[in-house]
Amino acid sequence: MPFAKYNDKKIYYEVHGELNSEPLLMLNGIMMSHASWHLFIPALIKEHTLILMDFFDQGQSDQMMVAYEQDIQVEAIKAVLDDLKLKKVNLCGISYGGEVAMHFALKYQDSIRKLLLFNTTAYTNPWLRDIGRGWNQAAEKNDSELFYNITIPIIYSPIFYSKNIEWMNQRKEFLYHIFKDSFLSAMIRLVDSAEHHDLRERIQEIKADTLVVSSDYDFVTPAVEQEFIHKQIAGSTYLQIKNCGHASMYERPTEFLTMLKGFLR
Amino acid sequence: MPFAKYNDKKIYYEVHGELNSEPLLMLNGIMMSHASWHLFIPALIKEHTLILMDFFDQGQSDQMMVAYEQDIQVEAIKAVLDDLKLKKVNLCGISYGGEVAMHFALKYQDSIRKLLLFNTTAYTNPWLRDIGRGWNQAAEKNDSELFYNITIPIIYSPIFYSKNIEWMNQRKEFLYHIFKDSFLSAMIRLVDSAEHHDLRERIQEIKADTLVVSSDYDFVTPAVEQEFIHKQIAGSTYLQIKNCGHASMYERPTEFLTMLKGFLR
Amino acid sequence: MPFAKYNDKKIYYEVHGELNSEPLLMLNGIMMSHASWHLFIPALIKEHTLILMDFFDQGQSDQMMVAYEQDIQVEAIKAVLDDLKLKKVNLCGISYGGEVAMHFALKYQDSIRKLLLFNTTAYTNPWLRDIGRGWNQAAEKNDSELFYNITIPIIYSPIFYSKNIEWMNQRKEFLYHIFKDSFLSAMIRLVDSAEHHDLRERIQEIKADTLVVSSDYDFVTPAVEQEFIHKQIAGSTYLQIKNCGHASMYERPTEFLTMLKGFLR
Amino acid sequence: MPFAKYNDKKIYYEVHGELNSEPLLMLNGIMMSHASWHLFIPALIKEHTLILMDFFDQGQSDQMMVAYEQDIQVEAIKAVLDDLKLKKVNLCGISYGGEVAMHFALKYQDSIRKLLLFNTTAYTNPWLRDIGRGWNQAAEKNDSELFYNITIPIIYSPIFYSKNIEWMNQRKEFLYHIFKDSFLSAMIRLVDSAEHHDLRERIQEIKADTLVVSSDYDFVTPAVEQEFIHKQIAGSTYLQIKNCGHASMYERPTEFLTMLKGFLR
Repeated sequence: MPFAKYNDKKIYYEVHGELNSEPLLMLNGIMMSHASWHLFIPALIKEHTLILMDFFDQGQSDQMMVAYEQDIQVEAIKAVLDDLKLKKVNLCGISYGGEVAMHFALKYQDSIRKLLLFNTTAYTNPWLRDIGRGWNQAAEKNDSELFYNITIPIIYSPIFYSKNIEWMNQRKEFLYHIFKDSFLSAMIRLVDSAEHHDLRERIQEIKADTLVVSSDYDFVTPAVEQEFIHKQIAGSTYLQIKNCGHASMYERPTEFLTMLKGFLR
Repeated sequence: MPFAKYNDKKIYYEVHGELNSEPLLMLNGIMMSHASWHLFIPALIKEHTLILMDFFDQGQSDQMMVAYEQDIQVEAIKAVLDDLKLKKVNLCGISYGGEVAMHFALKYQDSIRKLLLFNTTAYTNPWLRDIGRGWNQAAEKNDSELFYNITIPIIYSPIFYSKNIEWMNQRKEFLYHIFKDSFLSAMIRLVDSAEHHDLRERIQEIKADTLVVSSDYDFVTPAVEQEFIHKQIAGSTYLQIKNCGHASMYERPTEFLTMLKGFLR
Repeated sequence: MPFAKYNDKKIYYEVHGELNSEPLLMLNGIMMSHASWHLFIPALIKEHTLILMDFFDQGQSDQMMVAYEQDIQVEAIKAVLDDLKLKKVNLCGISYGGEVAMHFALKYQDSIRKLLLFNTTAYTNPWLRDIGRGWNQAAEKNDSELFYNITIPIIYSPIFYSKNIEWMNQRKEFLYHIFKDSFLSAMIRLVDSAEHHDLRERIQEIKADTLVVSSDYDFVTPAVEQEFIHKQIAGSTYLQIKNCGHASMYERPTEFLTMLKGFLR
Repeated sequence: MPFAKYNDKKIYYEVHGELNSEPLLMLNGIMMSHASWHLFIPALIKEHTLILMDFFDQGQSDQMMVAYEQDIQVEAIKAVLDDLKLKKVNLCGISYGGEVAMHFALKYQDSIRKLLLFNTTAYTNPWLRDIGRGWNQAAEKNDSELFYNITIPIIYSPIFYSKNIEWMNQRKEFLYHIFKDSFLSAMIRLVDSAEHHDLRERIQEIKADTLVVSSDYDFVTPAVEQEFIHKQIAGSTYLQIKNCGHASMYERPTEFLTMLKGFLR
């Protein structure tokens, strides 16, 4: 299991498929880890070398213990690329991962081939900030059930969640074991690291060929946010998944993959 | 201060304007009380006798102490009408109030002149049920800030909340004093009373002249819910407030009043 | 039958109900006449003195024979008000009538109490201009069936039109008798008079209390146009009729009246 | 230049790239020809053998002279496949081409690998039928300018058309030379061939892996039509191009190609 290093902190990553020069690196949403993409591996490695990683405070990467901003996650990505001696990657991020992807694209413009942004935002507005604070205050109670109920339903569309309630209930069982202790402390730092995220004035400088994807039932980063990103990044491609919530990769994997693969061609 | 009675429990209500035979009775959303409508009184009493009331477990009505279903709130309405010796009212409910209004319309069809349903649903689906459970689990922590952050931002549109963050912050100060102790215990029972709400098979029997209103940024009872109600209630009038969240009366009072007054003419 | 006069040209109008000081004046869409509102008279005269009129080149008003701009229609309105010695009116316009209403509001700010704009636009963009040119080129062929098929379906939502195809077919029979000769010559001039309509830079000066209404299936002046008007006119009220096309008054009369009456209260 | 034959009538087609066993066959919208796809050839032949063809009454295929239904176009496709000795193709149709693609998928289920449906409908409803009749009545006048203005603006989104008015004007010049005589007679027959198109009861039998794409400003076959197709074809993938009209391939070529390529992987 390879780890990259940044300031003595370890960053976990996995390479799937034989490494070529311009692979695809997936960046996780805030509650995800590299393992969240495992179902996508067969579909993705057919054509791309796939790199999965955990941000600091996610999965098997080191926990941070102290507060930080998203720029440290940018360096985590850079450390992985350097460890693999990669000059350029295709960078695909969802939600928090999309936010970090935009920061990375601004700092390391030359290291990006294509940029794929799903269900993300250029700015943690006061509404999203207070929602995040609520998540953190819930996390502080160290109560798995509370944390599940205030974070999970809202990231799915009501129709999907209700129709797949048995799958959601299995997932709930699984997540109850995750949503505790150090996971929750890490979550608090991750949420805090996004609180000052604001690229509204700088996003225009992104020159990478960019795909922007929204969902019509995204109640965390509504489509108006991706429409803004699309309008700011010149020449970007913009599509919408219909009847879908924030966690589009779980809810509409075929649509997610269709756009991802199509855009990388 | 008048109270109606049902099974020895007191129901608080207020009459504004001289009582005529077909007044307008406003039914509160779950976190509201009769006082939430006070800013609307001047606009409404010009043409209508206005009745405000608190459901059981709201405002100045008695707390229930035990679990119950929404049909007890239906009887609370009936008790108010009987106390006032009213044969018919115009019934306007938002969210939880709209749910109870539909139950009332089914049980006391003859007591309704017009029915006005804002941002409500015919059914607590598993998604909404789990969101409600999260609210209750948060309420159990008796932590005002947590409760504010997980219930309030989501009921406003992100644009309104962010643009009016100073007003929201004042509201937060005010609500911090409310969101504690017996208010939170009452909230838990109110949320629980809606958990089995399901009129999908019976709503077609509503014969009242009905107005249904949705908001495009309603993240609690999305427009698809009001579209369903509209299609089920024959001859109903259906309109949408644009750029508006779940708490449409707070966010878009002019639009709210325009439709309410127009429909009552 | 009263006529007002402007530059020796007669403007037809009707007053319904006893004249009071701030009546409601309805302004027709381009293919309408005062008679198009007759079904609305009972509902409207309960509370408002209702004034119906024909623009130049419509109904019983004089035909113009020469080309003109929409400002002549503004004077037609003024002539009617002067003839009735009215200081102020509520002005409600749909489509072309809404365009003229905005011009009137800018020139005669003091003569307006409230302004109601349904399915209209601040600007004849190149797309709408070319659609208008197609209508005129069709009108020149003096072929009723052609003119019906290229102008009427598009102003209704596909669902309404298809569901009410028998009513549409009756209407077709009726319109076949209208869509010929002098009606079509007048239509050409009316369409031409809107070709240079562009209030994008001036609409912000409108100070009247304004209601803006869009329909989600308006394929002539899509909702983005009314959203623009709403954002430009400070303090305006904005609502949407769902599942409805451009000719909202025909397709959704109850919704149309609900908003109109509510806004005039 | 190869031609396939059906009942002594010639069908024009082109093969781009070396022929493999499961190529991509593009089916034109009603006013298009094989040449409409020429700009897409470089992007498409990188990974797919590309087959372009003209339906009867389009481009270089034979004109029909007599009335017919869309099933004859189904046989035109079959004739091309037989001529190339192809067992299976990926079939991509837009608008009219999507309609024929669905008919083909139902008759020759085994000849389809994947089915891609852009901006199309399962049913020519009375609204669309009357719009088509208007197009035909305009075509009968043999007036290029009239025909352009009533068919072209409406197939683009107002924003695209207005923003790219210079390109549209060049296109107008070009189309003026096309929109005459035998092209218009052929158009009339093509439109008539779609008048009885109605697969609402049979579309569920399509078993092919299907992509359905809508545009939010499609004013000819609005998104509600593609939503219907998506719901009827089990397991279909559904995406939407935002800020785009009916002619999505012209208006949003990158988005069009992203989905097409992604779905064929």
